[in-house]
Amino acid sequence: MSVIIAVDAMGADAGPQVAVLGALQALATTKIDKIVLVGRESEITPILSSNPYDTTRIEVVNATEVIDTEESPVAAIKAKKDSSIVVGLNLVKNGKAHAFVSAGSTGALLTGATTIVGRIKGIKRPALGVLLPNTTSGYTFLIDAGANVDVKPEYLLQFAQMGSVYMEHIMGIKSPKVGLVNIGVEKEKGNALTKAAYELLDASNVNFAGNLEARELPSGACDVAVCDAFVGNIILKYAEGLAKGIFGMIKQQLMAKFSTKLGALLAKPAFGKIRKSFDYAEVGGAAFIGLNGLVVKAHGSSNAKAIMNSIIQCEKFISADVVGKIKEVIDLKGDDTNGI
Amino acid sequence: MSVIIAVDAMGADAGPQVAVLGALQALATTKIDKIVLVGRESEITPILSSNPYDTTRIEVVNATEVIDTEESPVAAIKAKKDSSIVVGLNLVKNGKAHAFVSAGSTGALLTGATTIVGRIKGIKRPALGVLLPNTTSGYTFLIDAGANVDVKPEYLLQFAQMGSVYMEHIMGIKSPKVGLVNIGVEKEKGNALTKAAYELLDASNVNFAGNLEARELPSGACDVAVCDAFVGNIILKYAEGLAKGIFGMIKQQLMAKFSTKLGALLAKPAFGKIRKSFDYAEVGGAAFIGLNGLVVKAHGSSNAKAIMNSIIQCEKFISADVVGKIKEVIDLKGDDTNGI
Repeated sequence: MSVIIAVDAMGADAGPQVAVLGALQALATTKIDKIVLVGRESEITPILSSNPYDTTRIEVVNATEVIDTEESPVAAIKAKKDSSIVVGLNLVKNGKAHAFVSAGSTGALLTGATTIVGRIKGIKRPALGVLLPNTTSGYTFLIDAGANVDVKPEYLLQFAQMGSVYMEHIMGIKSPKVGLVNIGVEKEKGNALTKAAYELLDASNVNFAGNLEARELPSGACDVAVCDAFVGNIILKYAEGLAKGIFGMIKQQLMAKFSTKLGALLAKPAFGKIRKSFDYAEVGGAAFIGLNGLVVKAHGSSNAKAIMNSIIQCEKFISADVVGKIKEVIDLKGDDTNGI
Repeated sequence: MSVIIAVDAMGADAGPQVAVLGALQALATTKIDKIVLVGRESEITPILSSNPYDTTRIEVVNATEVIDTEESPVAAIKAKKDSSIVVGLNLVKNGKAHAFVSAGSTGALLTGATTIVGRIKGIKRPALGVLLPNTTSGYTFLIDAGANVDVKPEYLLQFAQMGSVYMEHIMGIKSPKVGLVNIGVEKEKGNALTKAAYELLDASNVNFAGNLEARELPSGACDVAVCDAFVGNIILKYAEGLAKGIFGMIKQQLMAKFSTKLGALLAKPAFGKIRKSFDYAEVGGAAFIGLNGLVVKAHGSSNAKAIMNSIIQCEKFISADVVGKIKEVIDLKGDDTNGI
C-alpha cells in the first residue's frame, strides 16, 4: 500500500524549519510515498526552496492559523478551522493521509483527533503510548501516558490490548508481557481502579504478567505498562526530571576537583551513550492510538531528528496495519460506541 | 520534656541485631531519655550483653510474636496481640512511649497505628511522609507516600497542612512551599481529584505554590509535595528503580573500555557523594503523621544506621511537639471525627 503522512509544520517550538527538515530526512531514509506539510505556505516554501528534495513526494497544504498551547483545546478546535492541527486531522479523516504528526498543543491535538478522526468502533478511549527506554530489553510501552486522567477499569484493559498490538507489530515482540502499574506485586494491592482492572486483565486475551511496581519499570520487566494518564504522565515527566537531576549532580560533583575532572574527561564517551538512551529525539513522539488512523504527538522541543523519528514510527504503524490488528483484538461485547 | 522511643526489634529483614545496634547508636548521639526495645527478649538480650550501654536508658519489653509481611494487616493486628508491632503501638497509646519505630510489615504498622494509637481529633486520614532528596534545597517532603491510595480532596489539604508543620518544625524551613503533584502547572490541569484539591489548597492557610509537575520534583521546587498514596508510592519506588538503573548503566558503560575505566576510578569520590544523597539509610524512614503520637516506618532492608536515623527523626518530632502544632493548624470546621 502507499503510505502518506501529514506533518504539522507549525507545531514545534523552534519553528517550521524543524518539521520541514525532519520530513525531508524521513523521505531520504524510508519508502514513504508522500509527506504532506500542513501550515503557512508562505513560511514553508522558502525552507523547501533552499533544500533539495523530490517534488513528487512532498506536498504543501496551506493552513493559515496556528493553535497556541495556552488556548483551550475544545474552543480552539472549534474556532480555528484553518489551523494546521484541524486541517491536518481532516486529511486523515478524509483518507488523504494515513497519519498526522504534530509537535503542537497536546490538548488540542488529542481533542481534535478524537472528534475529527474518530475512534475505532468499540474503543472507549484512545490513549497515548510512549516508548520508555529501559536498561535491558530496549523499550517499555507506557500507555496511557497523557490522554485520559480519569479512567475506568475497562479502559485499562483496552489500553493493554492496544499496547500489545503496538509492541508486537511495531517492535516485533512476540506475545508482549503486560504489567499493570501498581504499588505492590500482590493481586490485592493498589487502589479501587487497579484492583478492578487486575481482574479484567487476568481474564483477558493479553499476556498479563500481573502488577508491575514502578521500581521495576526501568529494568524492562514488562513490554507494556498499563496505567491511567495521570500516573503515566507522572512517570514520564518524573523520569525526565530525575535523569536530568542525576546527570546534573554527577557533572557538578565531577567538576569539583581536578582528579575527578580528569576522570570525567576520560569517562565522557560512556556518558554520551547513556544520555542517548534517555533522549526523546531517538524515540519519535507519543502515538495516540485507538483512532481510525494514527496521530503522533511529538515533543514541543523537537528537533528535525525527533520529527523524522516520529514520521518513521508512523510508517511502521501504517505498514503493519495496526488499526486493523486492534480491531481484531478488541472485545466488542457490550459496546455502546459512545464510550461510556 | 523527657523523650521515650519504642523500637521494634523484630521488623528488619536482617534480624534484631540491626534495631538493637541502631538504638544504641541513637542513644550515643542524642539526649533521648530512654529507648524501649520491643520483641523477643531471648533474642534481644544476647545482643545487648555483648555491647556496652547505659542500662538506665535501655529497656526491653518482651513480645513473643512477629507479624510477617505476607499476613493480612487487619487480621494480623487482631490476632497477634503479643506481636512486637501491637505491643509497641500500645506503648504509644498508653503514654509509655512518644513514638514507635518499626521496619516490619507496612500494612500491619499503618493499620495498627490508626486503630491502636488513634488519630488526632479532626484528622481524617493519617498519612505517610517521606523526605525525598532533591538537587538543590536538600529534601522535599512527599506526603502521602504510602498510606491512603483512594483519597478525597479534603484529605490532600490536611496532608499539605501536616507536611508544612513537619518541614517547618523538623527541617527548619520557614513557611514551606507546598506543591500539588500534577500533570501540568495550569490550575485547570489534572484529574477530578487534583482539580478539587487545587481550590481547597488555594483557599487554605498553607503557602500554596500551585501545581507541581513531577519533572520539577527532583529540583526541589517545593518543600512539600502533596498527592495520594498511589501517586506518592509510584514516585518513591520509581525514583529508587530509576536511580538504580541509571547508576547501573553508568557502571556498565564505564567498565566497557580501559580509558573510561581509568576515568571511573578517578571520578569515584564524586559518585560516592551522589549515591549518599540517594541512600535511604541517611534519611530515616517514613513518618506516619496525624496520630496521637508518632509512628515511623523504616525500610525493611534497614541497617543499624537507618534505624538510628529513624530514631533521631522521632526525637526531633517529639521535642518540637509536632502533634501539638498539627492540632493548631487543622481546620476543625465540619469535622465528624469519623474520618468520612
